[in-house]
Amino acid sequence: MVTAFDPHIGHAWIERVQGRDRERLRDELAVEEPLEIRVDGRALAVTMRTPGEDEELAAGFLAGEGLISGPDDLTAVGLTEDLAANVIEVRTRAGLRRDPARERSFYLTSSCGVCGKGALEFVRREVPPQAAGAPSVAIEPEAVLAAPDRARSEQDAFRQTGGLHATALFAATGELLVLREDVGRHNAMDKALGSRLLAGDYPLVGQSLYACLSGRASFELVQKASVAGLAGILAVGAPSTLAVELAREEGLLLCGFVRGESFNVYAGSHRLAG
Amino acid sequence: MVTAFDPHIGHAWIERVQGRDRERLRDELAVEEPLEIRVDGRALAVTMRTPGEDEELAAGFLAGEGLISGPDDLTAVGLTEDLAANVIEVRTRAGLRRDPARERSFYLTSSCGVCGKGALEFVRREVPPQAAGAPSVAIEPEAVLAAPDRARSEQDAFRQTGGLHATALFAATGELLVLREDVGRHNAMDKALGSRLLAGDYPLVGQSLYACLSGRASFELVQKASVAGLAGILAVGAPSTLAVELAREEGLLLCGFVRGESFNVYAGSHRLAG
Repeated sequence: MVTAFDPHIGHAWIERVQGRDRERLRDELAVEEPLEIRVDGRALAVTMRTPGEDEELAAGFLAGEGLISGPDDLTAVGLTEDLAANVIEVRTRAGLRRDPARERSFYLTSSCGVCGKGALEFVRREVPPQAAGAPSVAIEPEAVLAAPDRARSEQDAFRQTGGLHATALFAATGELLVLREDVGRHNAMDKALGSRLLAGDYPLVGQSLYACLSGRASFELVQKASVAGLAGILAVGAPSTLAVELAREEGLLLCGFVRGESFNVYAGSHRLAG
Repeated sequence: MVTAFDPHIGHAWIERVQGRDRERLRDELAVEEPLEIRVDGRALAVTMRTPGEDEELAAGFLAGEGLISGPDDLTAVGLTEDLAANVIEVRTRAGLRRDPARERSFYLTSSCGVCGKGALEFVRREVPPQAAGAPSVAIEPEAVLAAPDRARSEQDAFRQTGGLHATALFAATGELLVLREDVGRHNAMDKALGSRLLAGDYPLVGQSLYACLSGRASFELVQKASVAGLAGILAVGAPSTLAVELAREEGLLLCGFVRGESFNVYAGSHRLAG
């Protein structure tokens, strides 16, 4: 089977219980392992993630946290030689600034974007000034409705394990640019955005790109989208109050419950055509 | 409406798009706000959470991180007077130990249980020695199958917003002890366990209690259950590879895809009757 060498998928013998019947079978599981992100030789964060695309994860994470602002700030990204160590090394152009006041907030950041921080004022990131209010091509309601199905057709791993979140980046025309999956929804977003960054393309301001999420839209996911300069989020699940507030403040389109023939618009309806 | 004073639920005017029709309506949303947890006067962590049961969240979080071991370690838990500040103050019996080596790991902990930590060795918590292998009453497959429906019938908020994760604690007999909801699944677990702790009952070793999760089972959720001395986890969604490994090591029952008339057993089938 092709999936034997897929880093996203693991296997385990399990028992399936149905009424009085018990069947032993080999099942496929989403892989979850810790990844330590080291920046310029120092440990910055550990996240539980699905292996694969770790370079993208690290790049997207650092960009979302505002620690790098684009491809030019990275000089090297790669797993350490001992792959089982689950450590990724990042080198930055001039070394991340290390003044004591910022040091603490660096250490308190996490893959969740907000937890672990020592004070509420660290919750909000600064959004690049060009991102808010950037001109954008409006997206057609038909393209919004089609996005989750198009993403699912790309989501091989999800079909097998049911255990992976997905983030797909779409153009306003409905074209799928990239899809990434992970046990952590923040990681899936970091990987998708990081793939653009490693391709030399970040932030994504003015490109009218939309992130389609397989699940719910939290504050942190809207924040990552906003910092990256996306035009909006199309979520299969529900948004939270703070996700809606931030999307409204930053002028992002935020659609939720994009299922079947309908969806809800929570913010930024000026970016919706028709 | 009753929900007008429910801290879990917010409201927003949204647009519902269906084909060419657009309808403006007032929708209910899961509330998400940051909470800073201060311990003995110092900021320890910030988590994005749904307000309500913040004392339980703080107590369950600290116990899950191994920073307190039971009710006797807490002298006071409460929101600061300015409720809008979203700060909860915890006082511990003797003050949490503050030697520099532990200090760093304290700061790096987070509501996600693992992210934000500076080294892989911090990922695994020590489980109370009495928890692993404690005798337990086996649970009937019928009780496993009935748990999610019973939890959903308790889950008022979920029905309205679709945006809240739930954790319910069940006895092996199928009796529901407590159900808690949150935008963060780790928080829902922390609240449920914290409610027992604040009632003077923690760890829960030897009580043969099971946590029923509305979603997937990650490594961190199994870890929280294990540290608390639960007998197992019954998840509506999929477990990850590392969740299965940890449950097997710690001797916990781990059921996934508990839906309709069947479920999968990934670990600890000795705790399943029949």
